[in-house]
Amino acid sequence: MNRIEKQLSLIMELDQLKSVLRRARVKSADDRLENSAEHSWHVALMAILMQEHANEPVDIARVVKMLLLHDIVEIDAGDTFAYDTQAIESQKDKELAAAKRLFNMLPEDQSEELLSLWCEFEDAQSADAKFAKALDRLIPMLLNYHNGGKGWLEHQVTSAQALTVNRKIESGSHALWEQAKKIIHDATEKGWLKA
Amino acid sequence: MNRIEKQLSLIMELDQLKSVLRRARVKSADDRLENSAEHSWHVALMAILMQEHANEPVDIARVVKMLLLHDIVEIDAGDTFAYDTQAIESQKDKELAAAKRLFNMLPEDQSEELLSLWCEFEDAQSADAKFAKALDRLIPMLLNYHNGGKGWLEHQVTSAQALTVNRKIESGSHALWEQAKKIIHDATEKGWLKA
Repeated sequence: MNRIEKQLSLIMELDQLKSVLRRARVKSADDRLENSAEHSWHVALMAILMQEHANEPVDIARVVKMLLLHDIVEIDAGDTFAYDTQAIESQKDKELAAAKRLFNMLPEDQSEELLSLWCEFEDAQSADAKFAKALDRLIPMLLNYHNGGKGWLEHQVTSAQALTVNRKIESGSHALWEQAKKIIHDATEKGWLKA
Repeated sequence: MNRIEKQLSLIMELDQLKSVLRRARVKSADDRLENSAEHSWHVALMAILMQEHANEPVDIARVVKMLLLHDIVEIDAGDTFAYDTQAIESQKDKELAAAKRLFNMLPEDQSEELLSLWCEFEDAQSADAKFAKALDRLIPMLLNYHNGGKGWLEHQVTSAQALTVNRKIESGSHALWEQAKKIIHDATEKGWLKA
């Protein structure tokens, strides 16, 4: 296959992300579970709108690339719930294998570049990755909150768990962490998060 | 509302794009219609993978922003089928009104910047917009083709229509237009597009 054929075959392979379901529900309309493709759109768009709230200057093109790519490994490895800390640990090898399989469908130069970007996001050490991670944490909280806490109630999430799991938002954005704390506080008052 | 509250309220408003249905079907799994949010993810990702095939050098951050935002007007105006040329014409005012309503939810500086980017995409004159438009044209053809031509057969699209409607791909990318012509030729041979 030539370059363009390789690229097109990965694009069609990635169509499967539209069938990977998450635990959050879309707010609008039909009360269905969100899929990882539309989540990836939503969080990448959020990066564009929220860039000014990053703690450190970020390269928005890199942040958006990370967010568009971050979940594609779920095509092989499935989605893991942010509050299931055991599953997240055991998931890591499967996700790395998935990233390698998918990016290896590309020409070698692109494969290396994008695998390295995907790993950078997972490591959450660079300014771009910390900001991207913060957004990826915050957006399901927003959806849960605007859905009357449904996702939290279904999985009996506690206020303490929400604070622990989402704490990393702070290293990407102090401003967004302030918002997250307000949401957690308010959702606890309403009984959506267990006190 | 302060800046961050305005930005967050637009982000929640845009959740509705996940409920706008297109004419194409997702390839994977459940044979359902694609929604505009997951389409926007798919085409933005395609821009990242396909940048080298743009006719002129492009600013990939701007191309990706355009593609993440291009369909949000459908929240008010609905999706229009690429082959329904009459509807597309009458749709323009509704879409501009929608763009203004949505972007006006943002702080003024952001609202102006993003409305202008949205208009640039619609005008399809700049190198960034021509490339973004080419991708937005090509991806439903790829989905239709890999779905056994279902979308074309359902709407009785002809080979001549496909060539006319998708011709604009060429001004964004000669290489992608070559692919499009191959797809149209092959789909016509298979009887998926009427000769």
